[in-house]
Parts: sequence; C-alpha cells; structure tokens
Amino acid sequence: MSDPFFHPVSGFDLPRFAGVPTFMRLPHLTSDHPRFKDVQIGLVGVPWDSGTTNRPGPRHGPRQLRDASTMIRAQHAANGMRPFEAANCADLGDVGPNPADIPDSMARITAFYTQLRQAGIRPLTAGGDHLTSLPVLRALAKDGPLGMVHFDSHTDLFHSYFGGTMYTHGTPFRRAVEEGLLDPKRVIQIGIRGTMYDSEDRDFAAANGIRIVPIEEFFARGVAEVMEEARATVGSAPCYVSYDIDFVDPTFAPGTGTPEVGGPNSYQALQVCRELEGLDIVGADLVEVSPPFDQSGGTAFLGVSIMFELLCAMLAK
Amino acid sequence: MSDPFFHPVSGFDLPRFAGVPTFMRLPHLTSDHPRFKDVQIGLVGVPWDSGTTNRPGPRHGPRQLRDASTMIRAQHAANGMRPFEAANCADLGDVGPNPADIPDSMARITAFYTQLRQAGIRPLTAGGDHLTSLPVLRALAKDGPLGMVHFDSHTDLFHSYFGGTMYTHGTPFRRAVEEGLLDPKRVIQIGIRGTMYDSEDRDFAAANGIRIVPIEEFFARGVAEVMEEARATVGSAPCYVSYDIDFVDPTFAPGTGTPEVGGPNSYQALQVCRELEGLDIVGADLVEVSPPFDQSGGTAFLGVSIMFELLCAMLAK
Amino acid sequence: MSDPFFHPVSGFDLPRFAGVPTFMRLPHLTSDHPRFKDVQIGLVGVPWDSGTTNRPGPRHGPRQLRDASTMIRAQHAANGMRPFEAANCADLGDVGPNPADIPDSMARITAFYTQLRQAGIRPLTAGGDHLTSLPVLRALAKDGPLGMVHFDSHTDLFHSYFGGTMYTHGTPFRRAVEEGLLDPKRVIQIGIRGTMYDSEDRDFAAANGIRIVPIEEFFARGVAEVMEEARATVGSAPCYVSYDIDFVDPTFAPGTGTPEVGGPNSYQALQVCRELEGLDIVGADLVEVSPPFDQSGGTAFLGVSIMFELLCAMLAK
Amino acid sequence: MSDPFFHPVSGFDLPRFAGVPTFMRLPHLTSDHPRFKDVQIGLVGVPWDSGTTNRPGPRHGPRQLRDASTMIRAQHAANGMRPFEAANCADLGDVGPNPADIPDSMARITAFYTQLRQAGIRPLTAGGDHLTSLPVLRALAKDGPLGMVHFDSHTDLFHSYFGGTMYTHGTPFRRAVEEGLLDPKRVIQIGIRGTMYDSEDRDFAAANGIRIVPIEEFFARGVAEVMEEARATVGSAPCYVSYDIDFVDPTFAPGTGTPEVGGPNSYQALQVCRELEGLDIVGADLVEVSPPFDQSGGTAFLGVSIMFELLCAMLAK
Amino acid sequence: MSDPFFHPVSGFDLPRFAGVPTFMRLPHLTSDHPRFKDVQIGLVGVPWDSGTTNRPGPRHGPRQLRDASTMIRAQHAANGMRPFEAANCADLGDVGPNPADIPDSMARITAFYTQLRQAGIRPLTAGGDHLTSLPVLRALAKDGPLGMVHFDSHTDLFHSYFGGTMYTHGTPFRRAVEEGLLDPKRVIQIGIRGTMYDSEDRDFAAANGIRIVPIEEFFARGVAEVMEEARATVGSAPCYVSYDIDFVDPTFAPGTGTPEVGGPNSYQALQVCRELEGLDIVGADLVEVSPPFDQSGGTAFLGVSIMFELLCAMLAK
Amino acid sequence: MSDPFFHPVSGFDLPRFAGVPTFMRLPHLTSDHPRFKDVQIGLVGVPWDSGTTNRPGPRHGPRQLRDASTMIRAQHAANGMRPFEAANCADLGDVGPNPADIPDSMARITAFYTQLRQAGIRPLTAGGDHLTSLPVLRALAKDGPLGMVHFDSHTDLFHSYFGGTMYTHGTPFRRAVEEGLLDPKRVIQIGIRGTMYDSEDRDFAAANGIRIVPIEEFFARGVAEVMEEARATVGSAPCYVSYDIDFVDPTFAPGTGTPEVGGPNSYQALQVCRELEGLDIVGADLVEVSPPFDQSGGTAFLGVSIMFELLCAMLAK
Repeated sequence: MSDPFFHPVSGFDLPRFAGVPTFMRLPHLTSDHPRFKDVQIGLVGVPWDSGTTNRPGPRHGPRQLRDASTMIRAQHAANGMRPFEAANCADLGDVGPNPADIPDSMARITAFYTQLRQAGIRPLTAGGDHLTSLPVLRALAKDGPLGMVHFDSHTDLFHSYFGGTMYTHGTPFRRAVEEGLLDPKRVIQIGIRGTMYDSEDRDFAAANGIRIVPIEEFFARGVAEVMEEARATVGSAPCYVSYDIDFVDPTFAPGTGTPEVGGPNSYQALQVCRELEGLDIVGADLVEVSPPFDQSGGTAFLGVSIMFELLCAMLAK
Repeated sequence: MSDPFFHPVSGFDLPRFAGVPTFMRLPHLTSDHPRFKDVQIGLVGVPWDSGTTNRPGPRHGPRQLRDASTMIRAQHAANGMRPFEAANCADLGDVGPNPADIPDSMARITAFYTQLRQAGIRPLTAGGDHLTSLPVLRALAKDGPLGMVHFDSHTDLFHSYFGGTMYTHGTPFRRAVEEGLLDPKRVIQIGIRGTMYDSEDRDFAAANGIRIVPIEEFFARGVAEVMEEARATVGSAPCYVSYDIDFVDPTFAPGTGTPEVGGPNSYQALQVCRELEGLDIVGADLVEVSPPFDQSGGTAFLGVSIMFELLCAMLAK
Repeated sequence: MSDPFFHPVSGFDLPRFAGVPTFMRLPHLTSDHPRFKDVQIGLVGVPWDSGTTNRPGPRHGPRQLRDASTMIRAQHAANGMRPFEAANCADLGDVGPNPADIPDSMARITAFYTQLRQAGIRPLTAGGDHLTSLPVLRALAKDGPLGMVHFDSHTDLFHSYFGGTMYTHGTPFRRAVEEGLLDPKRVIQIGIRGTMYDSEDRDFAAANGIRIVPIEEFFARGVAEVMEEARATVGSAPCYVSYDIDFVDPTFAPGTGTPEVGGPNSYQALQVCRELEGLDIVGADLVEVSPPFDQSGGTAFLGVSIMFELLCAMLAK
Repeated sequence: MSDPFFHPVSGFDLPRFAGVPTFMRLPHLTSDHPRFKDVQIGLVGVPWDSGTTNRPGPRHGPRQLRDASTMIRAQHAANGMRPFEAANCADLGDVGPNPADIPDSMARITAFYTQLRQAGIRPLTAGGDHLTSLPVLRALAKDGPLGMVHFDSHTDLFHSYFGGTMYTHGTPFRRAVEEGLLDPKRVIQIGIRGTMYDSEDRDFAAANGIRIVPIEEFFARGVAEVMEEARATVGSAPCYVSYDIDFVDPTFAPGTGTPEVGGPNSYQALQVCRELEGLDIVGADLVEVSPPFDQSGGTAFLGVSIMFELLCAMLAK
Repeated sequence: MSDPFFHPVSGFDLPRFAGVPTFMRLPHLTSDHPRFKDVQIGLVGVPWDSGTTNRPGPRHGPRQLRDASTMIRAQHAANGMRPFEAANCADLGDVGPNPADIPDSMARITAFYTQLRQAGIRPLTAGGDHLTSLPVLRALAKDGPLGMVHFDSHTDLFHSYFGGTMYTHGTPFRRAVEEGLLDPKRVIQIGIRGTMYDSEDRDFAAANGIRIVPIEEFFARGVAEVMEEARATVGSAPCYVSYDIDFVDPTFAPGTGTPEVGGPNSYQALQVCRELEGLDIVGADLVEVSPPFDQSGGTAFLGVSIMFELLCAMLAK
Repeated sequence: MSDPFFHPVSGFDLPRFAGVPTFMRLPHLTSDHPRFKDVQIGLVGVPWDSGTTNRPGPRHGPRQLRDASTMIRAQHAANGMRPFEAANCADLGDVGPNPADIPDSMARITAFYTQLRQAGIRPLTAGGDHLTSLPVLRALAKDGPLGMVHFDSHTDLFHSYFGGTMYTHGTPFRRAVEEGLLDPKRVIQIGIRGTMYDSEDRDFAAANGIRIVPIEEFFARGVAEVMEEARATVGSAPCYVSYDIDFVDPTFAPGTGTPEVGGPNSYQALQVCRELEGLDIVGADLVEVSPPFDQSGGTAFLGVSIMFELLCAMLAK
C-alpha cells in the first residue's frame, strides 16, 4: 500500500476543474524533495518536438495532458485496481529541453532518466515527439537490451531524413537497435499503416527480426490474439512500452502531427493496454500528443486515459 | 393519423437552414394555445445545468438541439415510420429555470411536467444536465414507481458530493429510488465505464437490484442481446427512458461535460433506441449535451437523431 | 512505368508542409503544356457548390484537399502499389465555375472533361457538391451508359426541389438515368441512411433496377460481401465510381453539408475502395467535402486518403 | 406606446439562453396571424447567399443572428430609448428562398416585402448576402427612388461577373440605380477599402453622383463629420439604410465572406448608426453575416447590436 | 528585495511551455508550507461560476490563466518594475468551491481570504464570476468600508434576479454596499455600456453616490483624465480593484459570458491599470474569464497581462 | 510595364477560391524555367521554424499565406498602384528546409537567396520564424551593411538562449550586426512592448546606435511622425524591411507564437507600410505567421495584405 502523502485529492472533495494541474492530481516533487526517495512510479513530461519532420506541437503535450488528467479518478472500472494506493506515484515535473539544439536536449533527457533509474523510480513519460524515446532508452537500458511493445501507425525505423539527418521522430528505434538498447527479436510494432515512402523500414525490421503487425492483421485477428503474440514476443525479460497516440485513428486522436486514417477506435486503444498485464515493464511512454491540432483537448483526455491504463499495467505484474 | 396542423414543413419546400428553429420544425405551442389540448407528444427543453459538478454548458443544450433538429426529415429510414403523422407532436418550449437556485428550478420543472401529465401529453425532453431527470420523474411517477432504461457512462447513483450536497447530476437516480419514483428492480443502466471514485454507487445498485451493464459486457454481448435483457428487465409496466449523451463515445459526442473514452459509436447509439420497441414509455429524455464543448454542432445533430429514434420508440408500442 | 517527370517529390527530401500544394505533389499542368498529351490520369478540382440545397462549402473542397494531399506518400501500405510509377498522373487544375449560374457552370465542366476524354486522360475528380457528377458523366458517357458504384448516405435520385428545380445535388443521378448516361441496372448505391423526406427516390430506384444497399445491410453483411455484389452488379463494362464523403460517418468526416449519423468508420471508408479492383473505371470522383464545417482538415485528409485508394483502384485492373 | 403583446420577455424573468430564439425575443408572427396588422416594424430573415461570388454562408445568417439576439435587452444605454415600447415590433420569420434559382428567389423576396409595404410595416432585414437588398428595394421603392446610406468595404456597383452574370452580391446597387430604385445623388457609401479589381465601380459612382467615402477619409474626418455629410446627402426624403457587416474590420466581424482588413472597430460600428437619427428610413438591412466563418458567434452578436441600433434609428425620427 | 525562493524561473532557462503551470511560474504554496508566512502578495484562483445568470464557464478561468501566465516575464516594459523582486509573491492555489451550493461556496471563499488577511498577505485573485468579489470583500473589509475602482461593462448593482434571487454575478456590489463593505462615495465604475434591462441599477448608484463612467464618456475624455478622476474618487484610504474582463471589447476578450460590444481595446485595457499607481490597494481581482468561449486562450493571455499590471500597481504605492 | 505572362488571373474571371494557390495568383516558377530570368520581384516562402523558442508553427506559414493571397486583387485602393503591371512578379516557391538541422537550413536559405541576388531578383519573403531573416541577410548584404526598418513587438537582439544557443528567433539581428550585415545606426525597431526578461537587448541597442520605438511612443506620436523618423534613420542607401506579424496586436493577428497584447490595429498595420515609400528596399519579409494558432486564417489574410503593401512599397521608389 502506498503512503497517503501520494494519494490524489478526490473530485468529490475538490472539483476536478480546480487546483494547479499535476499529472492525475499527484503531488509534484523535484529531486530535492524529501519524499523523492520514496517515489516508485514517476510521471514525467518531456515537452520537446525538435525531432518532428512534419507538423510540430508535441512540446505542448505535457501541459495539456496534465490539464486533462485531473479528470482521472482513483479506480480502474474494469479490474478494480487502485494504482495510487498500489504504489507511491508522483508527478516529477518536466525535463527542460533546448528547443533549438537536439543533441543538448537528448543529453538532458538521458541525464534526467538516469537519475530516476538510479533512484529506483520507474518512469511513465508524457512526450514529446517520438524521438523522446531514444534518450529515455539510453538511460533505462543500462543492463542490456530491452524488449518493446510499440503501438504506432509508423515503424519509426528509418535510417535518416533530408539528406542524412539521423535523429528525428522517424528514426528512434533504428538508432536504439543500432545502439543495443533494444533487442529487435523482442520488439513488436502494432498498428502500422498509412501510405509509405518505400519499404526501407520494413526491410530493416525483417532483417533484424522485428515483428510488425499491420493494421489489416490487427483488425482481422483482434486485440486478444494480437496481444497474446505481443506478450509471447517480448517474454518475461524487462521491456519498454512505447505508445504513439497516432496508433489510434485520427478521428479519435486528431491532436497529432502525422495522422494516418483507418486506425483503432478508443475502446481498442484502451484494450491493448489491458493486455500488457504480466510483462516486466521498466518504463513506458505516451508520445506525439500535439495540442495545437486539437484544441478541444479530446486527444489529451484519451491520452491520459491511456496513461492510466499503462500505469495499471506497470503495476499489474 | 395526426392533424396537419402538427406537420412540419418539408425541406423540399423550405430549405432546412431557414425559419425560426423549433424542435424538428414542429409548431411551437404554450399551454394557453387553443391546440395545446390536442398535443400527444410534447418536446420540451430544460436549459439548466446547476447540478453540474464538473464542466458546465448543458443549459445551452436545448437551443443547439433545436437548431440541429431542422435537419431531421419526416420518415424513419429503417422502419418507414412517420412519427409526425402518427401522433400530434409539438414543441412546448423551454421550462424557465433559475440558474442560481437549485430547489426553485426543480420546483419549476416538476410543475411544468405535472401540467403535461394532467393534459395527457407524453414528454420527450432535451436537457439540461442529468439532475433534470429527477424533477421530471417527480411529475411522471404519480401512479407508482417506474421502470427505466438508462443509457450512460455513469450510474448517477452517488449519495452526495462536496461534503453532503444531495442534488447534483451525479445523484438523481439515488434520490429517485429513495423517493419511490423508480422501481430499482426494473431499472437497467447500460454503458457504464470510466475511472471510478470508488464502488459506492455500484454497491447501492447491487443492494437495490439495479442492473448495471458495463461497457465491456455491452461490447462482448452486442446490442441485440443486451437490449433484449433490457426489455425483459423493464417489463410491460410503465417506464422511463433516460439517455445521457455521454453514453456515446466522446469522439462521436464531444459536447458533454464528463466524457469517458471507449464508448459506443453513433450507429450503436441509434440501434439501442430501435430496440426499445414495445415498451410502455411514459416519457424520455436526452441530457448532458453541452454546446460550449462542441461548437461544431456534431453532438447536437447526433442528439436530435437520438431524439427522433426515441420519439419513434414512444410511438411504436 | 511512368515518366520521372510525373513523380512527386518525396517527404524525405522536401518536408511535407513545404511547396505549392498540388494534388499529391504531382506536377500541375494545363492543356497547353507540352506534357499534357502524356498524362494518363488527371486529378481535377471542381470548386463548385451551387447545387447545394442545404449547407454550402464544397466550392472550397479542392483547395483543402490539395493542401491535405501533400501528406500522401508514394506507396500503398497494404498492397505495395506505387501508382505514380504505374501511370503518368498530373494535377490538371480546377475547372473554373460560375458560382451564380448553374447551367453555365455545367457547360464549363462538361467541356473540360470532354477535352480530357478526347486526350485519353481518365479523370479523378475532387468536388464540389454532388451535382458535379452530372456534367462529368455527360462528358464521359459518350459511348453508351456507364455502370456506377456509388458510396453515399443519400440516393441523390430525387425529381426536383423547391417547386420544380431540377438541377441540385439531390438530383444528379435521376437526371443521369433519364439522359441515358447511366445504365440503372448496373448501378449500386451503398450506405444509404438518415431520415427520409418520403420514398420517392427509392421508388424510382426500384422501378429502374438500381440496387440500394442501406447501411443496416452494409453492417450486417460486411464490406467483403457487399463489395462482391457491387462488382457483380457493375460487371466488366466501363463504369464510374462516385464517392460522396457523407458515406462516411460524420464523426470521421464532419466537413460536409448534409451529414447523416451512424455510418462507416474510416477503415471501412478505405476498405470499400480496395474492393473495386478489377473494375473498368473510366473516371471517379470524391465530392461534398466542405471545409467550412471542418477547419481541422481531418475530413480533407480522409478525403485524399480515399482519392489515393481510388487512384490505385483505377490502375489495378 | 406599443401593445404589451409585442414586449419581449426580460432576462430577469427567463434566462437569456432559454426559449425558442426569435429576433430580440419578439413574438413570431406570420401574415395569417390576427395581430399581423398591428405590426409597425417587422424583423425579417432572408437566408440566402446564391449571389455570393466568393465564400458562401450568409444563408445561415438569420438563424445565428436570432440566437445571438436573445442577448439584447430592452433599453438603449446611451440615449435611454426603449424601442419595443415605442412601436409594435415582431419577428416575421424568414423569406423562404430557392438556393438553386436566383430569379425565383428574388421574386419570392420582392413578393414578401411588397406584402409588408402594403400592410404598412417597415422592414428591418437580416441577410443574406448583399444581393438581398435588390429585391427588397424593388418592393420598397414603389413611390420613387430612395436615398441610401450604405456602410460597406465594397461599393457593390459592378456591372457583371464571370463573363456577364448580372445578379451577384457585387452588383445590387448598380442594378438598383439602373432600375430607378435609388436616386444616386442621394446615395452615400462609407468605409470603402481593400484591394481593387480596377476602377470600374468608382467610375460608375462618379458618373452618377454617388458619394464614396473611402476608409482613409472616414478615419481622417471622424464619425461625426462623415455622418453629418451622410445626413445632408440623403436629405429628408425617404431613404434606405444598408449595412454590410464587412464594413467593420474583420477582426471584429470575421464571420463574413469577403473581408477587408483595416476597417472600423466595434464602437465606430455602433456610432455610425446613432448618427442616422432624423432620417426618414423606410427600411434597413444588415447583410453578409456568414456563420461558418465565425462559429464563436461574435460576428452575430455585433450584428444584432447593430440591428438594435438600426431599429432605434428607424424609430428616432 | 524579495527572497530568491520566490523568483520565477526564466524563459531563457526553461522554455515557457515547460513545467507545471503556476501563476507566473511562482512557487505554489499552501498554508501549511514553511514559507507561507513570508508571502506578501498571494495569487489565488477561485474556480467558481454558480452566480452566473447567463453563459457559464469562469470556473475554468484560473486554470487557463495559469497556463497563459507562463508567458509572462519578469520586468515591466514601460516602467522597468520587476515585481517578483519587489515583493515575495506566490501562487496560493485555488479556493475549492462547491459548484452546487452558493452559500457554502461563499463561506469557503471568505474563510480562505480571512486567513490571508490575518497572515498579512494581499490577494490578487483570478476568478470566477463576479459574485466572487463579494465573499472576498467580506474578508478584506474588516476595518471599515473600502473604496473601489471597478472596470466593467456592467454595474453589477442589481437588486435580484429570477423573482428574488439575491446572490448572482449581477448583484455583488449592491450587496457589498448594503453590508457596509464598500463606501459608495469612494466607488467608481468605468466602461459601463450595453443594452439595459432598465435603469434600476443606475438609480441605486445615483442614490448612493457611486460614480458611473459610461463608455461614451470614457472614450470622449480619454484614459488619463478618467483615471485621474478615479484616483481622486477613491482617495488615499484603502481600496479594492475589481476588473471584469468584459470591460474590454469582446473582440479582444471573447472568452466571457456576457459580452458587450463597443469597448476598450487591449492597449487601453493595460493603460487603465498603469494609472492606478499611488492607490492603497488591499486586494484586486480579474474575473469573468470563461475559457469555453475562447479556446484559443487569447482572452486568458490578455487576462494575465492585466494581472501583471495589477500586481505592479499593488506594489507601486 | 510588366509582361502579361506575369499577370494574375482576375477574380472576375476565375473565382478566388478556385485554382492551385500561388502567392497572389502569380505564375509559379523555379530557377530552371525559361522566364525566371525576367522576374523582377520574387515572392518566396521559407517554411521553417526551428529557431522558435516558444510556440512553433511558422513552418506552416507560407502555405496558409498562399491560400489567403488569392483574395488579393490587382490595384491598391488608396494610391491606385497596380504592382503586377509595374514589375514582373512571380511565386518562386519555397526554400526546402531541414526541420531537424538549423545550420543546414540556414545554408540552404542563403544559397537560394544568393541565386536570386545574382539574377537581379528582389525577394519578398513569407516566413518562417524570425531567424529566417539572418540567412536572407547573409545573401543580400554582399555589398555592405544594410539599413533596416523592423516592425515587431520584440527586438530579437538577445545574445543567446538556454545556456548559450546562439541561433534562435530571438537573436537574428544581434548576429546580423555582429556579422556586419546591418548598419546598426541605420536600423529602427518599431512597436517594441511586452514583459521583458531583462534589459540586455536594449542595452545592446543603445550601445550600437539602434533606434527603438516602444509602443507607448508609437501611439503617442502617431504613424506619420514615427515613420518620418524611420525614413530619416534609414536614409537613401539600400535597406531591408522586416515585418514580424506580432508587431500587430494579437487580437488582429492571433496566429503567431509569442504574442504581446496592446499593439497596433490592422489599419495601422497597413499604414506603416505605406509610409515606406521612397526607401531603396532590396528585400522584405513578413515572418512569424503561425497557422496552428489561428485556423480561421484571419492572421494570414492580414499577413498577405501586409505583403501586398510591402510589394507596393518596393515598387514605389
């Protein structure tokens, strides 16, 4: 059981529109806080989108996700889990990026997450564009390559863009495999779709043993069967979960930079998380929420609902 | 057959964007009108949201629903019913609330609906937040407790909010059961989901015999099977139908105050109404449409499409 | 293989938000261009909505569709087709309409498409309201009546509006049958739904042998089975494909003038096109995209995704 | 003093968001109503925009203006006038147009206003695009040409568009002068600005004695001086007031089809109406409010504030 | 000079879109924090709108204002003041209201502000609707009635609404005068405009010596002269400043519930605050910012710019 | 007189919503086009915002500006100039940036503009964030430092951000002075306002002789007097004009990343350009239009109206 210090205030007591918005109304701690050492799960924002090759905006994601997250209550409806009582959870604030310098920003992120790893805090990240996952993995994969369940409409396995630029939101997992942060044979990418430049990314996947589940297969086989394969692919060793909001159909999640039509609905968006139970998740992220393209906040509300599911999955082992 | 006085003008004659917008282009009557006594189904707006604990706005619902309703035509596509010919329908205007006084507003609403009941007019209500249903039920349940089919993502069965406040949009059906307006054993709540405060509401339901169909069960069993159970639960005695627009997934109905992701789509939103045929419906409502959170009007158009289905269901016995 | 002159620039080289937006980044040619004679598939805009009886806006469709179309890449994800390499495709610009004169506009459109037919260019049109299809068919059906696969929520088979007006977006296919441009026995209309004025249009369909697949049947039988019937209905003779964006549920495609709730989702919206393979398609259109009712551009992005599918279908025979 | 039958309900009694929205909460009468003969000022909607050469939408103007108009209260703040007590005012509904037939629509409008003129009712019109003014003037100028105060950023004095089309929203006053409905020497056009096609319209004005006040002169001389000249130009004979919402800077009134930046602010938008006092106004209109381009409703609220000022001016003689 | 503990982080170090959003990036303290006793100016949110008679939404004001406030930097451009160095400023969080109980909410607010007064903290409040000012004044006016500079388009001096409801956002200053919280002879209301119900509020003002400056007088005399009179009216004794965002023209501040066109622009909105220098301000508020009616956030950014000016004015004596 | 090849089509012939949108409907040429050598004024887009320290989006500016620019007609209303007849103007397309590499993008921009300078084409640029001006100046200032008239709310004279990053949209003119591209004594910055980090930028200006006109001085002295000083400051030697859209009040131009309230209105936004007549302008830009923050397009339409004024100013010497 968690310490009451870490329990969010209820909407029965303080209306959900009130108060300074932290993630899920958790206490906001920085590393110099006396209770920092007691945190088990840290919710972290990475307001950064310099790796974006198309429409920008995820730098504004963490703030809108915090705002929407005050709508989240304490208990999971389907399985009854109460995650804030199951572990000490806290909002650890944002990693301050340098919007005009990609290497500097990556170094800052890796340093921040290294500190968490050393403190024994498992991170649940709100991005940020998908390049965010790379510096996070550099901090988390210190004990060997990780497996990964990856929800997305894109593989993010490209070699480079614009004549040789190696670090963009379309390349993080190519780099992560090259750097030995991921074990490609324990990586599964689910929901891939959309018009393609060419087959370069899929050739890389095939050559390295990464499993790709295209959307047609996802719909044909169904959530339960695909996720059973996902668990089998990743196995019992430590793994990471990376959830790009553009996995979901853009009608349900318009606030993102590179939408691809014809994706899962919001119910399936939650269901896939519920099927992660049993994995050894060392960290997870929800990335590519871009508020300027959905000022209604609907994408962010779906995003924090997914984050709540990921949090429960991290605690369900 | 209805009197031509009560027939809406066709969009073939007057374009649908033209004219003062009444519900479904029906004549607008007040109780002092000579034809009031001939009305069989009264469409009524209750522009009131003082019971809202979260995001306000349903006070603007009736106006936007009237605007959208001029898109509705005369005939049901699937079953061929022409409801405006089947009964004398009219727009009876809005109940004037007192936005700064909840008890006063509830008294005004009950008085208005008592007048309808006494005139033999069955009401189809456009809310308003869900507290609206309570003063309406106080007027309609004069001859004994009613059954109810309730579409919603929330049970609205809580005891109180904010340290003891008994009348909010999260408590109407707890009050209605306590006041003997509803027979809990003839009440079914369909679509329940979303993160939970705790289990207090479901404990109340279990203790009183209210049937809750969570969204997971709804999707697993399908519309036809769930609605068959709904009809069996309610039986042939008089019943009420209460439809909270947040039953529908918020992507299809963003204009509402307390959305919960992962709900039914717009086709299912209509289908459940078509499966009400045969019930003895003494009144129905569509509540929690909040225009400020969907200025596109899409929620309202779905809302009036549901109202048209409810109207047909009220006439299909 | 197509000529490299006709290949779009890749988003790997020029970011997708850059450049003057032509359809799918294809070269923009007018009929006086030296390469005009080499074009095989012409993408054409018809920015015209004077036939609209309800909410206007499709005159702005082609521009927003061009803008969104720069998100389209070169290769189909599911079948690997690379249409811009399979044929010489080009953006042939817009037909200039006369917004205040319907007959004049129809004459201009027919003249433009006659020129294309004479040059051996198959057109893929971005409307425009649905009246657009009539003057296009007048140009294309010179060698006898065509079959047609028609995706829509409305039949567009009405006789007239407003006391005898014969040319509106609700009448084009009635006129086309009367004028011998369509062979009604080879016409199938899929997705029909929404409240109805009366049964006049369906009576006309029944009397002439037009096959209507209501949305209830569409969902009950599924895409594969319905489309198998569609191919059988149309047969191997030349046909036209007309895709009204309001075929899709308005949550997925809000930017249209006469939405009807309860329609297909975005995945189904694409799937139906993939099942057109093998037909002899002499032309296709995507109509009724109305940007003022969806400034987010989501409808347009779905629209161009559909146009990409139609393009592949036109090349898949 | 007016009859209490014609007094709007106060927002102190019925909240302003409640009730079926008629213009300024006035009673809605049609010509067959027993009190029709007692009406002195008739507020009329003309939901029509078929004359629009650019961005459409004013067909939706009357409805949004009615909605916004329930914010209007009973008394003028600056001069204390209470217009609804000064005369019997009523909402006379909309003229039903034929969106697909310009001559038919013009005939319907002229017929409607002829009926008003014959009943001694002075009209205050909510358009509709600016072509609306022409068929209205045809009904009102039965006793000889009228003077006119015209607020606009365009002269609307062009000969024709698109190769000879004579009836568009850019030509009504050219036609009105040609038809003898306006006395050009008693016409003043205020606020003219924006890039120009050429000088054809201004040459026509100069040749016929129409006074044009460009925006530069308007700002340099100020409201009081310009309006003094306007009153002198029009004189004491009967006149019409035509107010195109695009007279106002588009930041204050974005909901219009052909905006021109650099115009008057909202205070000046009202002030010019207050300076009409003393004119013999036989009718007035507020046109070109296009809701699809301002879903916030700000333009409509400014529009009805202008209509309230025009109403007071009509009663201030 | 203030303690560096209370200095906001600079946008040069942490990008302005990063971090948990507190008011102006100040430290967030609750009353149990060890540094609470050192606070001199407390920024407080009151997310409450139950007194709203028209369009709701100000309950969401504090959150959006906090979000926008991270755009505020450290130094005043015109006078060079650095307020966060001039005094210890802090974000003291929100007063938790009871949205469904007006008396309970007022008691909570008065209790919160009483605690601040007792701790010697001067409050700068972000509302909330204008009823907020009444319970705040109840806490602050313990040593005798206060003077007040009041910027608004409405007097908020009405007796009651809806048949006798005494506590709404249209009545706070009538109550405050009656309760002896304000000295009416030291109260000035600036910017009053808009259509009026009647003259009841102005009669009350006249009878009690409250000075009303209508907008026409404001524009005719100019900011400097009007504000000189304001300072003379209020004098050197303690006073309160209440700023309703609807003082500003709704084009500049659309996010409010009861807009009135024809008001000051954004430059004048700031200038009036700069002319408060020298007054003995015991507290100030900025109320009626309603985010649902301006999701762009422009109103909130203007609002926090005004709050920054009010903060400087509170420190400029 | 210009060649008719370079004349835009008129809105009298082709409706303004029709056609592939190039800047002001000019012909779109690339450097390999046979008429490239005849171009005198080149309109160029730079869709790039990697230097943005705050809210991103100007990478989408050129496309939205092109779209809005089809509303521009051929003749200046106030002075009668017809710029497209006065010189051969063309849309030269966009410079393709590398969104993830600032130095690479700057090199691409400088190379593109060097080509224009060598061809004798004067550029009128649509940005892009304000860092765009630096690589443009590197190409244009080959013959010695330029003077500059700079409209902005910020000086953009900072040394660095985020611990030493030298190239952001807040530093271009510091760099330009350091690199000898600008003669600081011939530079004037007009409209400066907003809260300040500190005085570092103004100290740099003072030390180098750059003239800053704060907004308070701008309003106090008026457009004519300030611009007279601007012309005197810059003198008759070659100069550049840089116009940041955030010079204008954000109510008139919300679509920008770092708005500052209290700025000029849209009329003043145009007037300042008209007062540039007589300067020897070697190039001009309009930057920081950020479409995601104003999807209405109002900012872009104001932006292209400013570009039209700048074009006339470039031709008015």
